[in-house]
Amino acid sequence: MPVISEKVMEVPESEGAVLVCGLPGSGYVGKLAADHLVSSFRSKRVAEYSSPLFPPQVSVKEDGTVDPPRGDLYFVAGKKGKSFFVFTADAQPTTPEGEYELSDAVVRFAKKCGVKRIYTLAAYITGSFSNSPKVYGSGTSQAMLDLLTENGATLMKDGGISGMNGLLIGMAALKGLEGACLLGETSGYVVDAGASKAVLELLSKVIGLPIDTSKLKEKAEETQKVISQLQAMAEQSREAAPQTGREQRPGYIG
Amino acid sequence: MPVISEKVMEVPESEGAVLVCGLPGSGYVGKLAADHLVSSFRSKRVAEYSSPLFPPQVSVKEDGTVDPPRGDLYFVAGKKGKSFFVFTADAQPTTPEGEYELSDAVVRFAKKCGVKRIYTLAAYITGSFSNSPKVYGSGTSQAMLDLLTENGATLMKDGGISGMNGLLIGMAALKGLEGACLLGETSGYVVDAGASKAVLELLSKVIGLPIDTSKLKEKAEETQKVISQLQAMAEQSREAAPQTGREQRPGYIG
Amino acid sequence: MPVISEKVMEVPESEGAVLVCGLPGSGYVGKLAADHLVSSFRSKRVAEYSSPLFPPQVSVKEDGTVDPPRGDLYFVAGKKGKSFFVFTADAQPTTPEGEYELSDAVVRFAKKCGVKRIYTLAAYITGSFSNSPKVYGSGTSQAMLDLLTENGATLMKDGGISGMNGLLIGMAALKGLEGACLLGETSGYVVDAGASKAVLELLSKVIGLPIDTSKLKEKAEETQKVISQLQAMAEQSREAAPQTGREQRPGYIG
Amino acid sequence: MPVISEKVMEVPESEGAVLVCGLPGSGYVGKLAADHLVSSFRSKRVAEYSSPLFPPQVSVKEDGTVDPPRGDLYFVAGKKGKSFFVFTADAQPTTPEGEYELSDAVVRFAKKCGVKRIYTLAAYITGSFSNSPKVYGSGTSQAMLDLLTENGATLMKDGGISGMNGLLIGMAALKGLEGACLLGETSGYVVDAGASKAVLELLSKVIGLPIDTSKLKEKAEETQKVISQLQAMAEQSREAAPQTGREQRPGYIG
Repeated sequence: MPVISEKVMEVPESEGAVLVCGLPGSGYVGKLAADHLVSSFRSKRVAEYSSPLFPPQVSVKEDGTVDPPRGDLYFVAGKKGKSFFVFTADAQPTTPEGEYELSDAVVRFAKKCGVKRIYTLAAYITGSFSNSPKVYGSGTSQAMLDLLTENGATLMKDGGISGMNGLLIGMAALKGLEGACLLGETSGYVVDAGASKAVLELLSKVIGLPIDTSKLKEKAEETQKVISQLQAMAEQSREAAPQTGREQRPGYIG
Repeated sequence: MPVISEKVMEVPESEGAVLVCGLPGSGYVGKLAADHLVSSFRSKRVAEYSSPLFPPQVSVKEDGTVDPPRGDLYFVAGKKGKSFFVFTADAQPTTPEGEYELSDAVVRFAKKCGVKRIYTLAAYITGSFSNSPKVYGSGTSQAMLDLLTENGATLMKDGGISGMNGLLIGMAALKGLEGACLLGETSGYVVDAGASKAVLELLSKVIGLPIDTSKLKEKAEETQKVISQLQAMAEQSREAAPQTGREQRPGYIG
Repeated sequence: MPVISEKVMEVPESEGAVLVCGLPGSGYVGKLAADHLVSSFRSKRVAEYSSPLFPPQVSVKEDGTVDPPRGDLYFVAGKKGKSFFVFTADAQPTTPEGEYELSDAVVRFAKKCGVKRIYTLAAYITGSFSNSPKVYGSGTSQAMLDLLTENGATLMKDGGISGMNGLLIGMAALKGLEGACLLGETSGYVVDAGASKAVLELLSKVIGLPIDTSKLKEKAEETQKVISQLQAMAEQSREAAPQTGREQRPGYIG
Repeated sequence: MPVISEKVMEVPESEGAVLVCGLPGSGYVGKLAADHLVSSFRSKRVAEYSSPLFPPQVSVKEDGTVDPPRGDLYFVAGKKGKSFFVFTADAQPTTPEGEYELSDAVVRFAKKCGVKRIYTLAAYITGSFSNSPKVYGSGTSQAMLDLLTENGATLMKDGGISGMNGLLIGMAALKGLEGACLLGETSGYVVDAGASKAVLELLSKVIGLPIDTSKLKEKAEETQKVISQLQAMAEQSREAAPQTGREQRPGYIG
């Protein structure tokens, strides 16, 4: 088996379309956002990626059947300049080599289709809960940074972006495209649809495409209930036990 | 050395035969079951698989000699529609890449021989002992799921199946075959012939093939004695020591 | 993607030039020293190295933009016999294979340009702070060892040099070049510009090239303040808490 | 770089010569024994092996110079039927793939030279000290097992032999040669020249070759002194501290 097997169903030629990528990671911020895009728009699966460097397992789906891990590239045809691609996957590859190779394959295919800009959606871990999550941003050029800040993103000034969210835009730059990463502020403790919603709302402005996030809003409200319960439990145990610190720290669950 | 070296002794053409796979894993549930099939039927070794991605060691056999780790594919010729293959190995490969490549090679060979359905036998870890282990199931199509439930399996609704037990049926689906995994309920603490027996009994109904499991029954009774001893020891230490929990937890030994 | 991608901008032919290598590692001793050389001299980037075996991430730079990890080879043209190359990278590769391959590629290129001697700059971890860090040395030939000791280095007598600092000079020897490693004494607890300064001062004598280390001196003084604070904190906690040992051990932070 | 680079200086054709292998591992039992053979006989280095799968480091030798890790094959020309090869290395490869590939390369070369039998020298860890270490054995055929027991080896009945000591004889069997592993009983706590001596004495009988082990005897006596000190220290701390167990356990140092 080759490192990455790419199965192409269709090569949509769409000069100037953007590629939006969301992968499993902290808080599932990027994955939830990408899945939301795929289900909210009339999307068509145009390529799939399998690899011996994905985790060696199959996941049981809600209907009881199983699938090996796979990456999927979708295309959403829109009016002129408003078409876009979405890339998501069941998992990130298990090795650096796998992450580089998959990023390379996806960016290569996107470039062939005429993509000029790549956006990755990710999580910015803070360790504490926020009702109005900020969106941080980073990009491969000053022009991209300006575009992000004009639309409300807070620029990262240091640190790094690990995994494919970073590599995909790094690869974009190496191949002459532009890239940016939008990172939604999240605690890191729960699957965080609120952070996904915040990220998509900013993306919506950046690429000038209306995105209906009402379903994510419902999920975010469920998250909020979980957080309230965690906080109440922490409150109780703080009262019951000798106080050893000022912060309440629910257990890390995601 | 190539990643997987396949040495073929014979290519039995057997349209519609099934392939049953059992590999070392938790409780040795699948491995015991596969070895039982090989020794209970008139089986013939038709292919062997070696790989630099197997664990780097040799095992000392009962007669004192050694062998490097290897995968073996056996064929049992039966009446029309009742022939089957058994795949087992001394170990699972040490890397995801190895697991994918070995699964790929075995499914490819099976397909060439006319196999249409692949069953993997595995363990479903519960952490507690059961006298009448349930068998859980998952599959690659609704038809397979129906076949499993009709014969008494409990469907998995979420989670995943890791290692080659999952990949072999995932690969089956990718190559146009059907696959199912039967997982015997087991504590995870001991080599569990009782779980193997339960899995083979359900498999027997699913593929319509009588399987004599009396030898596994003997082994299962030995397991039962070990479990009773572990429980008695846990009982004693619970009496002797200050009680810190309601559960009795024998040490994890497998 | 190949294991190492080498992009050559220029092949400076410079018979007898030396190659100085400094990579991220304990105390950033080698990396700080190499960056200092690149910024202190009129240096020209002549080759860059990317690899799927670098860490899978991008780093956010001070201006907010990102870059994937990369190795850079610089050339500083000097008077006859005083030209030199500097190799540095954003990170060391994540696997032994990556470290060997990158070392191989860099030494191969350097040899093609006429390089005869390779120096790597590294850290010698002691676990305690020193105001006048010693510089240890090791080399691929007795002639190199003599050159080091004549200029004040303390020879290593056992142990090993791990990572690319070791491999680069090992590769040099395998390809018929000479190599030496200069290791600046450092605690291992802080980014240590003082150790970098000591290493560059000894290198300056060894290769007969004046190096202005005043900027490193400023950074070293900042380091010294951090150390003083750590020592004061350790002193306080030693007074406040029951004394369990004679040594003061600030937490390991780098 | 290829996975294994083999540099051949000479191909001694020596039908029926044996190959003796000793590699770094627990107690350095095999490595000490192999080095002793190389230095005790008039040996000639006939091939060397380098690999990006060796540990990424160089070791500083007693004279202060460094070398990257390497495998070395030596040839000792003897009277008819008494010639032999010795294979040793500075380290074992860091991955299963590396261990398989290096074993494969060495066995392939040995077979080309006419070698029919391969012996690996290893350690059998017991956790306690012995004045007269036993030698355990395992082999690839009943004939080899008989040869070992006739000369005083205790056969292994289960367990495994990990790393290249196991793979080399496993590979031998796969390529139609015979193999045996001699494992010297050792505590696992110290470099154990006494175990090396015991292994070489049994090897001497098995291959019918006188081996002078007096230098190993000296080293073994030094080991014995270290052991006595460890035991005295353990004795003292047993007296000073509340007794929590019957065994004396010096710290694991090798």
